[in-house]
Amino acid sequence: MPVDPAAPITITAYDWVPDFAKGQVRDLRVRWALEEVGQRYAVRLLPQGAQKQPAHRALQPFGQVPTYEEEGLTLFESGAIVWHIAERFPGLMPAGAAARARSLEWTFAAMNTLEPVITDRAMATLFEAGEPWSAPRLPSIDARIEERLREAEDRLADAEWFAGAFGPGDLMMVSVLRMLDGTPHLASHPRLADFVARGTARPAFQRAMADHLAGFTGQPPAAFAEAS
Amino acid sequence: MPVDPAAPITITAYDWVPDFAKGQVRDLRVRWALEEVGQRYAVRLLPQGAQKQPAHRALQPFGQVPTYEEEGLTLFESGAIVWHIAERFPGLMPAGAAARARSLEWTFAAMNTLEPVITDRAMATLFEAGEPWSAPRLPSIDARIEERLREAEDRLADAEWFAGAFGPGDLMMVSVLRMLDGTPHLASHPRLADFVARGTARPAFQRAMADHLAGFTGQPPAAFAEAS
Ligand SMILES: N[C@@H](CCC(=O)N[C@@H](CS)C(=O)NCC(=O)O)C(=O)O
Ligand SMILES: N[C@@H](CCC(=O)N[C@@H](CS)C(=O)NCC(=O)O)C(=O)O
Repeated sequence: MPVDPAAPITITAYDWVPDFAKGQVRDLRVRWALEEVGQRYAVRLLPQGAQKQPAHRALQPFGQVPTYEEEGLTLFESGAIVWHIAERFPGLMPAGAAARARSLEWTFAAMNTLEPVITDRAMATLFEAGEPWSAPRLPSIDARIEERLREAEDRLADAEWFAGAFGPGDLMMVSVLRMLDGTPHLASHPRLADFVARGTARPAFQRAMADHLAGFTGQPPAAFAEAS
Repeated sequence: MPVDPAAPITITAYDWVPDFAKGQVRDLRVRWALEEVGQRYAVRLLPQGAQKQPAHRALQPFGQVPTYEEEGLTLFESGAIVWHIAERFPGLMPAGAAARARSLEWTFAAMNTLEPVITDRAMATLFEAGEPWSAPRLPSIDARIEERLREAEDRLADAEWFAGAFGPGDLMMVSVLRMLDGTPHLASHPRLADFVARGTARPAFQRAMADHLAGFTGQPPAAFAEAS
């Protein structure tokens, strides 16, 4: 679905991020879920800094994107938004109580078990790369990531999706695992690499990514422009 | 509800943990949710080490507790289990689509925004306390916790609960914030300290905690016994 400024759903995203973050900002997950269920949506593009202003904090208390608005309802937290979309519109939630339970547990596994160790690596290699503790700690971070990937890969085995059928849980697992693109981790876990490739090959993901990238129409804030 | 070995719901917990973990193992959240909805449950107490054996990994791929079993359904991830209990049994989910949305977003905020920075502190002060990078990194961890607490406290303001009415989101927010007991963080955020006190004063929490503590009937594994 093309982005539609008059759609009854509005999400937020940034009009500019550093290059390393393009393709990874968490509005992408929400766009992907909306594409899977075929819902048009509008995007309010925030310039950097606006996420910390009161108007946005009223929607997102931690001053982040994404947010989600529909008639009579607002939501923050990408996990909550994707779960809500899967419940609200047909096309993403797999049928049956058991498949729904599998989707629920893998949504939380992605957000609470995998993403924290993976973002820890981004802290050490990007946001706190210059700190004296970051390089010495990296082997410990990588060992924790490897343990989680080994366990996830053992569970996936030869299945196509973690939750049996594609749904919010697998959408979030793909979204979190592909944060490891550009690191050595996925190469040593070919079944997880194939899983990510299967997820990102979906037409809904491809459309979401194209619109996500097309949203970066703004200029870097002064601090970034000076630094580069 | 007293623990009932014949109940149709079974959860897992440990028969022994080090003293610092007593009162914090994540089966407590699930017990609390079950107490709020008045469901009896059985507990399968695992000796340390059993969580990494194939029988348990079949239920929990990452070799952890808690797990949840009911007729025809198994679940792992404390966030997924608490959300499922709130949906499945009356007594925990607040009524209405808006209140449900608030509960959903605060469940994910607890698990994806607050808990990762808080467990990071436990890594630095407990599990990796002896590593050379831990002490130098602590001020940066504490600053990130403080930022999140300030934002959460600003949002809570003078409200009783984050989600308007007590439900799974507030149950998880209390569960995560009280992991900071014994650190200096809550003292400087009196509204959050009061919020935790309100949550843990609930009779359902008190019963859950008593049963959680009563489950530690086992002996330390050989490695721990030697070390102490
Ligand atoms: N737990 C949140 C995390 C959101 C998040 O980390 N957003 C980032 C972009 S991917 C952000 O807006 N960061 C900007 C900032 O903190 O200033 C979610 O899943 O929605
Ligand atoms: N994301 C999981 C985390 C569960 C977890 O961390 N469990 C801990 C106890 S609180 C555990 O079993 N650790 C033992 C181990 O990893 O060996 C959840 O929320 O259920």
